[in-house]
Amino acid sequence: MKSEDKILLAHGSGGKLMHNLIKELFLKNFFNPILAPLDDAASIEIASSRLAFTTDSYVVKPLFFKGGDIGRLAVCGTVNDLSMKGAKPLYLSVALIIEEGFPLSDLEKIIGSMVKASQEAKVEIASGDTKVVEKGSADGLFINTAGVGLIPPGVEISAKNASVGDVVIISGSIGDHGIAVLSEREGLSFQTQIASDVAPLNELVEALLNVTQEVHVLRDPTRGGLASTLNEIAEASNVAIEIDESAVPIKDEVLGACEMLGFDPFQVANEGKMVVILPEKWAEKALEALKKHPHGKEAAIIGRVVAEPKKKVILKTSIGTTRLLDMLMGEQLPRIC
Amino acid sequence: MKSEDKILLAHGSGGKLMHNLIKELFLKNFFNPILAPLDDAASIEIASSRLAFTTDSYVVKPLFFKGGDIGRLAVCGTVNDLSMKGAKPLYLSVALIIEEGFPLSDLEKIIGSMVKASQEAKVEIASGDTKVVEKGSADGLFINTAGVGLIPPGVEISAKNASVGDVVIISGSIGDHGIAVLSEREGLSFQTQIASDVAPLNELVEALLNVTQEVHVLRDPTRGGLASTLNEIAEASNVAIEIDESAVPIKDEVLGACEMLGFDPFQVANEGKMVVILPEKWAEKALEALKKHPHGKEAAIIGRVVAEPKKKVILKTSIGTTRLLDMLMGEQLPRIC
Repeated sequence: MKSEDKILLAHGSGGKLMHNLIKELFLKNFFNPILAPLDDAASIEIASSRLAFTTDSYVVKPLFFKGGDIGRLAVCGTVNDLSMKGAKPLYLSVALIIEEGFPLSDLEKIIGSMVKASQEAKVEIASGDTKVVEKGSADGLFINTAGVGLIPPGVEISAKNASVGDVVIISGSIGDHGIAVLSEREGLSFQTQIASDVAPLNELVEALLNVTQEVHVLRDPTRGGLASTLNEIAEASNVAIEIDESAVPIKDEVLGACEMLGFDPFQVANEGKMVVILPEKWAEKALEALKKHPHGKEAAIIGRVVAEPKKKVILKTSIGTTRLLDMLMGEQLPRIC
Repeated sequence: MKSEDKILLAHGSGGKLMHNLIKELFLKNFFNPILAPLDDAASIEIASSRLAFTTDSYVVKPLFFKGGDIGRLAVCGTVNDLSMKGAKPLYLSVALIIEEGFPLSDLEKIIGSMVKASQEAKVEIASGDTKVVEKGSADGLFINTAGVGLIPPGVEISAKNASVGDVVIISGSIGDHGIAVLSEREGLSFQTQIASDVAPLNELVEALLNVTQEVHVLRDPTRGGLASTLNEIAEASNVAIEIDESAVPIKDEVLGACEMLGFDPFQVANEGKMVVILPEKWAEKALEALKKHPHGKEAAIIGRVVAEPKKKVILKTSIGTTRLLDMLMGEQLPRIC
């Protein structure tokens, strides 16, 4: 078998290989209008309600890291996927795949952390499943959460709705989650005080929608980081996005770690941040609303949507040059979520 | 660490240890009225619609077996969990955890099989997720599917609704899936022609509900087999269930394989069968409706709900004796679904 016929780690990276895999294998096979937009959650019209429905598996390694654990991640990640459709998250399902021999005490800690996060996000667990596989057949614990939420009438948020003239906001500093997880990994020679930003974003979205329902795009830049997310939006909306590098909040420690490791902070995962794209007339009020919430206090306007070059993201660097901000290619940080 | 502090394979068996784990760890922590009944799917009231919502991970080994594969299983299993609430399955989510190096050709076969099964069940895939973990960190492929469906007005199906006097029907022969999967496992010295029964049951449920909405209980006897399912129902409804052994359809080859391996066919998993419990007055018509459908043509009345001994299942054997049919204890067949 040739190596291109095998699944590579990079197929799970959130980058180009993964996008190709999804397009080639999944969309081709499962095509339907609900799945097609490739947003973080599907929007399902049932009788009078518009439901959002989403799923994510969590395979983060290690299971515990500064600022969170796989349990908090599994709740927040799915809450956020629903929130990125503008939906009010209501119910989650939780499915565990546990490796034989996994310590019950760790499982209890993780479940406790899921409970806390679900209370924080005001969602309930509606369905569960547990599978145990033999020692060596999984790596400790994998968690899948699916979620349903309700999309308020009038809200139409999608990666394909970015319009020329819109303003791009990020809700806080980028790269924290990726660097926090990485710094816990065994054998790494650095340690940071950076904690993961993993947090539920539904209150932040609610605050935003209280300002205006005219929000065009919401996206949480998880796997593949801000770069991949912006590229996805530029492609889906057939526009260009111009980002002012110096406006993007990045913690010094994250920058330092990225320099040491040769990573681009724009490609490092976040788990408690979101990109907001909306008409310029709402930008200041939206920013103000975000900054009032603890999860949005470092929010900043970082760029705008322009017409050309279509489907590209342009970074205006602090030294005045510009460069293309490309989607992550290959796998930079496997098992970051 | 003592061995009782670790997760054992038996914690995933569908038997007593798993029930204890769910009760002790999950229900205690996640308690809410929606999750509490521990049915196969949650029922969620949203505006005017009643949604069913469920999740299951699939870790079957091997991935391909006579009569199906993990893809067909992952679609049918979740379709069936929704169907067991009387819901019309509408949308599934699909989340893959793939081991690095997994052959793309196998993935394509499995996706193809999911497409076929979802067409058969008339459900659409609304959301997806792909994670890849390093070689050795998973065993080929795990699939999670969550599902949402709509519960028709007036339908109230739950494991706690079995009433004294009700009739117990099984929709076909038992044990086929477990034996089919087992016979594919490497190193096993027997081979059967038994194919897995894995199939979507939603049409069968629709046919049944066309006869009467007064169906009390529907359950598909998957992990832990018919014995565990009947015990769960007896416990949830606080009744006894009396089963006539000779009335239960079991294929000769399944019986033979069970004898050889020391298995009780009542504890072997099914993936395309269901237990129906409903008032006696509807029994004959219900049976007739089931038998008309290809997936129900071997349906049979196998027992009834009685008052005592509460929470027990009594098997009247073909030689005239009776024995308690106990829930599976420990793990008989790991990774059967």
